[in-house]
Amino acid sequence: MTAPLRIALAGLGTVGSGVIRLINENGAMIAQRAGRPISIVAVSARDRNRDRGVDLSPYKWVDDMDALAGEPDVDCVVEMVGGSDGPALTLARNSLSHGKSFVTANKAMIAHHGMELALLAESKGISLKYEAAVAGGIPVIKGIRDGASANRIERVYGILNGTSNYILTTMEKHGSDFDSVLKDAQALGYAEADPGFDIDGVDAAHKLAILAALSFGTEVDFDGVEVAGIRGIMSADIGQAKALGYRIRLLGMARIDGGKLFQRVNAYLVPESHPLAHIEGSTNAVVAEGNFSGRLMFQGAGAGDGPTASAVVADLIDIARNDGGTVFSVPADKMVKGGRAQSGNRTGKSYIRFVVADKPGVLAEITAAMRDAQVSIESMIQTEKTNEGSVLISMVTHESRECDVTQGLEKLVNSSSLQGEPVVMHLLSDED
Amino acid sequence: MTAPLRIALAGLGTVGSGVIRLINENGAMIAQRAGRPISIVAVSARDRNRDRGVDLSPYKWVDDMDALAGEPDVDCVVEMVGGSDGPALTLARNSLSHGKSFVTANKAMIAHHGMELALLAESKGISLKYEAAVAGGIPVIKGIRDGASANRIERVYGILNGTSNYILTTMEKHGSDFDSVLKDAQALGYAEADPGFDIDGVDAAHKLAILAALSFGTEVDFDGVEVAGIRGIMSADIGQAKALGYRIRLLGMARIDGGKLFQRVNAYLVPESHPLAHIEGSTNAVVAEGNFSGRLMFQGAGAGDGPTASAVVADLIDIARNDGGTVFSVPADKMVKGGRAQSGNRTGKSYIRFVVADKPGVLAEITAAMRDAQVSIESMIQTEKTNEGSVLISMVTHESRECDVTQGLEKLVNSSSLQGEPVVMHLLSDED
Repeated sequence: MTAPLRIALAGLGTVGSGVIRLINENGAMIAQRAGRPISIVAVSARDRNRDRGVDLSPYKWVDDMDALAGEPDVDCVVEMVGGSDGPALTLARNSLSHGKSFVTANKAMIAHHGMELALLAESKGISLKYEAAVAGGIPVIKGIRDGASANRIERVYGILNGTSNYILTTMEKHGSDFDSVLKDAQALGYAEADPGFDIDGVDAAHKLAILAALSFGTEVDFDGVEVAGIRGIMSADIGQAKALGYRIRLLGMARIDGGKLFQRVNAYLVPESHPLAHIEGSTNAVVAEGNFSGRLMFQGAGAGDGPTASAVVADLIDIARNDGGTVFSVPADKMVKGGRAQSGNRTGKSYIRFVVADKPGVLAEITAAMRDAQVSIESMIQTEKTNEGSVLISMVTHESRECDVTQGLEKLVNSSSLQGEPVVMHLLSDED
Repeated sequence: MTAPLRIALAGLGTVGSGVIRLINENGAMIAQRAGRPISIVAVSARDRNRDRGVDLSPYKWVDDMDALAGEPDVDCVVEMVGGSDGPALTLARNSLSHGKSFVTANKAMIAHHGMELALLAESKGISLKYEAAVAGGIPVIKGIRDGASANRIERVYGILNGTSNYILTTMEKHGSDFDSVLKDAQALGYAEADPGFDIDGVDAAHKLAILAALSFGTEVDFDGVEVAGIRGIMSADIGQAKALGYRIRLLGMARIDGGKLFQRVNAYLVPESHPLAHIEGSTNAVVAEGNFSGRLMFQGAGAGDGPTASAVVADLIDIARNDGGTVFSVPADKMVKGGRAQSGNRTGKSYIRFVVADKPGVLAEITAAMRDAQVSIESMIQTEKTNEGSVLISMVTHESRECDVTQGLEKLVNSSSLQGEPVVMHLLSDED
């Protein structure tokens, strides 16, 4: 057995403590699998005295987190601090500059600064790894980078945010309203007090930008993700989708469209025959469709200290085995600017739901607007009256250009019949 | 870009031709991802003149397959001949002895000779890889070996045979009989003319033995797998299971039981809430439950030339990247003899179905036998009369020791009331 891989941990919240617990519990087995022990030598966090349920006494305590980058006896720094910039980014830059491999669970940092850090790591010939940044404990980075490596990936998509999926599938199960499920989820600790990051799609967009870069060899382009969340979705939408044979899921979706990168986070109507329709609760699942493999799906826990620690330590085992390799699937300096494909050019079926005043002529107004925009309607249902005396109208379009749907809706912007913004969701198809 | 990885292909059936097509089509992308090109230099198969839809003229044709092992300009031999012994095994031994890495899709050979070949490869410091041997295009070997590497795997199980799953889920969908679905599957090419290998569980057992060795660090022990297939399953069983909230799936199941290895292929009743209950048609899915990751599931196409080629070439990319590593999760000479845990000691609920004569006293006879064996019955249904005037009796036991169930059934072996062997299936639980 050769010399241990000596690591330093920055950040000792639930994930950081989880990594310590994992290495303590599975250490002997890990040493066999990695070919050498993984040994924690130094730790740093804000508060030295907080009780974390793990014994920190065997490790050198470093007050100044940034000093870990310069610790002489450390081969690899593990960052579990979070935040796209600030201390995490400084530590990443400094650690890599000092020739130390770097493992992180920080999706925001990789989504925003992944290219810079990848170039730096590769110029030094060291590893930058981030399995835990996407879909928690599911080894989807390795699944795409190594498992599907022989394929041109046609599209990559999935359920990337557990909180949103928990809310949607709980609404589905109990027929309950968004607001009440969110409140319950917050009480149970499944949703943050400030839930915007999760339910408005930002967290999923971070992960999607990373998956897209990995799958297509395009530069990470977080700002190119079109993002919408799930706040507008009503229980009636879920019922309506179900009647049509679909389930509503918040998906991140990326593909190459005419040489350009298309990235979107939005709620989709997923056909019941698709495996994503069966992903319940806070589970995550990622689908990669390869030109030879066909559809691969990876599912598991998308968050939590155990799953996240599992992913972090798997990265450390890769490094201990000297299986580091490039940061993404291809060397960072070979990644291309994808350009941005606009969703408006895309064609597909859309679900549109309006809340309207219960008065004559509304249906005629809506259908005329759609007709004028060249959008033809496949099915339309005027559903229940709400408590406020409004009426819900749901429709599914025939295959249409998305920009035509947008144009149809724009014609209705000033209509006095509409109450609130219409909700638009796309139907997931094999061509999406 | 460094020197190409030079490979020789043995066997040019659909999978071999698929590998050639894949490398032709995705070659430039693969070179970027692997850091160097993968280049086919020599090929060998039985019939040189057969039209395979791929141009073989760029490659050196070698009549004697075994001579590939000695080809001076070859770094790695890819075997797609099949068969646990014979030419495939000879080629594997010779290639590794000559210091050439070896990639295979041959589950039977790895299940029977994996230990010998792994020891040989590791003694030479070269790679032996077999991603395509288990679950076709799904990167489950890498998923467990690399993705879940930080975990003690609690159990590994899944749907490992596409033909059996196609038959069971088609029966489920259409309420049709086993025989007619098998006949249709054979006509459609989904099942072999001699289907025993698939429907009697042998193919799944090969894959399970490999997964168990990888997951638990135990020596590959194919002979230790308890194997049963699906021939005895009737449409009524599927209906009965459905009424109870279960789907019937042929599963391979492995875990460590009191320090010993438990391996079984059998039909299970899978709760509808479990992701395996939603795997339809010929899709495969593998679940690995880690002590930190929780439940991970990998799903995709378990067979076919495209998916299999995808897995074979992913192995080649690993080798080109020098990410070969040990054959299983730990070095072969560190793998332990697991010993064999007997299923009789296991505890769980069982589904038992009898075909009996429609006459008085049968129910009393069966229930007495179970009572005498200490097996208590949770639910029992006497179902429809068959065309032959027989009656079906299905029961689900309370948690019982399997040996007690066996003992109860043994008491009935000579009963004149029973028509044919009872069918026993276990209910998949979180503890299974």
